[in-house]
Amino acid sequence: MQLKIKFLKWSAGFPVVMLNNKTAENLGVYSKDRVILKTISKPAREISAIVDVIEEILAENEILVSSELKEKLNLKKGQFVEVILSPMVNSLTFIKKKLNNKRLSQKEIESIINDIANNSLSEAEIALFVSTMYEKGMDFKENIFLIKAILKTGKTLKLKNKFIVDKHSIGGIPGNRTTPIVVSICASAGLIFPKTSSRAITTSAGTADTLETITRVEFPINKIKKIIKKTNACMVWGEGLGMVPADSKIIAVEKALRIDPESQLLASIMSKKLAVGSNYILIDIPYGKNAKVSLSKAIRLKQKFEKIGRYFKKKLEVVLTKGDQPIGNGIGPVLEMIDILKVLDPAQQGPKDLEKKSVFLAGKILEMTGKEKKGQGIKKAEEILSSGRAYKKFRQIIRAQGGAIKRLIPGKFKHNILSNKNGKILEINNKAINLLARIAGCPTDKFAGIYLYLHKDDKIKKNEKLLTIYSGSESRLRAAVRFYAKNKIIIIK
Amino acid sequence: MQLKIKFLKWSAGFPVVMLNNKTAENLGVYSKDRVILKTISKPAREISAIVDVIEEILAENEILVSSELKEKLNLKKGQFVEVILSPMVNSLTFIKKKLNNKRLSQKEIESIINDIANNSLSEAEIALFVSTMYEKGMDFKENIFLIKAILKTGKTLKLKNKFIVDKHSIGGIPGNRTTPIVVSICASAGLIFPKTSSRAITTSAGTADTLETITRVEFPINKIKKIIKKTNACMVWGEGLGMVPADSKIIAVEKALRIDPESQLLASIMSKKLAVGSNYILIDIPYGKNAKVSLSKAIRLKQKFEKIGRYFKKKLEVVLTKGDQPIGNGIGPVLEMIDILKVLDPAQQGPKDLEKKSVFLAGKILEMTGKEKKGQGIKKAEEILSSGRAYKKFRQIIRAQGGAIKRLIPGKFKHNILSNKNGKILEINNKAINLLARIAGCPTDKFAGIYLYLHKDDKIKKNEKLLTIYSGSESRLRAAVRFYAKNKIIIIK
Repeated sequence: MQLKIKFLKWSAGFPVVMLNNKTAENLGVYSKDRVILKTISKPAREISAIVDVIEEILAENEILVSSELKEKLNLKKGQFVEVILSPMVNSLTFIKKKLNNKRLSQKEIESIINDIANNSLSEAEIALFVSTMYEKGMDFKENIFLIKAILKTGKTLKLKNKFIVDKHSIGGIPGNRTTPIVVSICASAGLIFPKTSSRAITTSAGTADTLETITRVEFPINKIKKIIKKTNACMVWGEGLGMVPADSKIIAVEKALRIDPESQLLASIMSKKLAVGSNYILIDIPYGKNAKVSLSKAIRLKQKFEKIGRYFKKKLEVVLTKGDQPIGNGIGPVLEMIDILKVLDPAQQGPKDLEKKSVFLAGKILEMTGKEKKGQGIKKAEEILSSGRAYKKFRQIIRAQGGAIKRLIPGKFKHNILSNKNGKILEINNKAINLLARIAGCPTDKFAGIYLYLHKDDKIKKNEKLLTIYSGSESRLRAAVRFYAKNKIIIIK
Repeated sequence: MQLKIKFLKWSAGFPVVMLNNKTAENLGVYSKDRVILKTISKPAREISAIVDVIEEILAENEILVSSELKEKLNLKKGQFVEVILSPMVNSLTFIKKKLNNKRLSQKEIESIINDIANNSLSEAEIALFVSTMYEKGMDFKENIFLIKAILKTGKTLKLKNKFIVDKHSIGGIPGNRTTPIVVSICASAGLIFPKTSSRAITTSAGTADTLETITRVEFPINKIKKIIKKTNACMVWGEGLGMVPADSKIIAVEKALRIDPESQLLASIMSKKLAVGSNYILIDIPYGKNAKVSLSKAIRLKQKFEKIGRYFKKKLEVVLTKGDQPIGNGIGPVLEMIDILKVLDPAQQGPKDLEKKSVFLAGKILEMTGKEKKGQGIKKAEEILSSGRAYKKFRQIIRAQGGAIKRLIPGKFKHNILSNKNGKILEINNKAINLLARIAGCPTDKFAGIYLYLHKDDKIKKNEKLLTIYSGSESRLRAAVRFYAKNKIIIIK
């Protein structure tokens, strides 16, 4: 059936269409059913969407589409699209096969990933897939199939250069925003660094959220190639590129459920590294109490990453770093960007821990690629940073992305938390800090967040400031203050 | 913040509100966040809903609510409600505790069930709970907590009578619609039968869907008491009563995922039986190839049901019946009701298998309650049926529920499937038959379904009719015919 497109500036958060009840009846669909929308003009694109049935607003030959669909199909008002009843999907059967302890074939995993990418599986169905992976795990072969399937449903970046490098830090540590610094140092040294980053999953900010405070991070692939040609690097939002669309949808559900199965973590990271064509990959796994993974799990993950790296014939190294407390002072997009700029700018003094870790990671990459001899990487990285060359490179990349360095001021509502005694900081709970920042509005409210005045083992006096909470919304700030009062977030002894 | 109610005749399938972008900003909420709506006038009711943010249609002091919310809060247009940011829910933490192999306490299970009932958990989160129960199972104690928690969030029916009886057949067998016949026989014999039934989960029709072809099935509890007082029985939709609201929501997700964890199956059935206050409970478990459960699983379930029955001090019996093929000829609400009326009406000839099974179950109940001696139940049930007393009772109940017996005609589009050879029916795949009927439009399209001309071991000649598919929609009929052609649904040897 051909229906005429109508828009409502309406962000349902997922692809929904509204149909008049008569139209729905003629199509044979009911509320919550799925339909497929196909564009009539070439190139034909199609996507699946969930149906809402309404009795007002729409004429019988009209279809009201949410903003998600408008963007994905590049629709114009008044345009006609073909709408058909969605056929049954098989992939739910495969998910249940896995749930019942059976191994999945390459075809079955491809079918699941295809249906996720095409939007043919509902959020509840993706949730079942995520929890099944969490529960049952995947063996090496399945994990390779998963990586390949995610790659196959997306686009890749084809750069012609031997020295394409990439890094990834496993998330969960508030303020662990080394990427912009590492990229700037390595690109200064002549390496090609096509860095794609994600938005926050379970934390208060992802690198993409943080960069967005001063620059655009969403570009078509052609534009990214130009940015890289000019600057040796880019720092963009990976999902916006359509490189790993299935991964993006899985991550959205993981976000809602706050679980992160290991097989998907491996596939998510590796598919992104492979999509940009990197030959040298550094993985940073923060471990320890309050980190996402324990030391033993970090070691297991390291071995898995290395095995996958060998399978795909890449030079891949994994470093384990201490992840038992936040890094830097700022937590939240704007507050973290302020820290980054202070580290990069030789005229300013940034948080020492953030600087040290960034230099360590950049040094590793310089050594992996043979740009520096073993043992010389850190020294070289420090030199590039202190000379201001990294800062210059950073500004060049940001400018190429249409951004500019500017003075950033965190959220207009704020509240100081003071120490209630004299003592020493015994523990800072990363998860609780992240949750606190999220309650304050992170990552959607980029100006929200936390400024942490102290780190572990630092001494504090009664009534001295421990942290400041910032938010753009008074009600969220109040909720965050209440949350702090009720939970053990920082332990002083 | 107080906002003015505005309606859109809009059935999103779940509780959603739309807010103007300014209003959302002031509240500190984003698309897909949750808010709590509280009525200001007494009695104060509250419910959680998901937010959509729009830039048109609404003024800053307005809130657009979906029809689900309108009904649940009994809202009037122009009325003001208090809208606040939803606090974080703990129950997701408890679900993840279970996912990580830990046993849940009574309080934790209550918290999960409360949040489901209040609508504070999303579909993806409920999906995680369902898959966790599927995966991890629950021990006896947890299962009792689950039943109690479901009961606690709902209402109960308080009847004063010793002989309150109930029955339940585990679903999955197409056409297994014994309830209306069993209820009519038992109520004729003086037993009190407050029967609540569900709509289809994974099959083409539930008892409530089938009854709805001739009568209303949704009533407030007071009205149900009146129906029972007048007729000894009722046959209503359980979820409409608000007796087990959490169960209803869990079932909706199970429906989407097509999984049905054992602990939830036990809790779902038992909570309903306890909510109506039945003292004698008969559970029918169809088993075998093509049934939901194998013989060994049926035996395990039987023991679990009996243990729960003892815990709640109820007289509970479990019968295992053969479930390897559909029962009766009609599959789908209208087609099944036609079968039921033929069995009940002594002037007509109904499907023998449906009649035999109904008489067996009714006979069991007559014996359990002591109304008949051991071994005499079936004979008595047959007598009540063949005398027309059961039919009279059935019509009385339907009349009390505002319905009437009428001539029913299945869907206007139909297609005959003929045998492609001479032979004998070797197998009829229940799941595929259910799916076929669902593709034709069941259970939403009550007139859709299948008429099955033959059963297992029956002989058939080439070009003789095997079945007829009915649908109210031509496109659905075509999809069903294609599905039949592609799958092994009936095997002839």
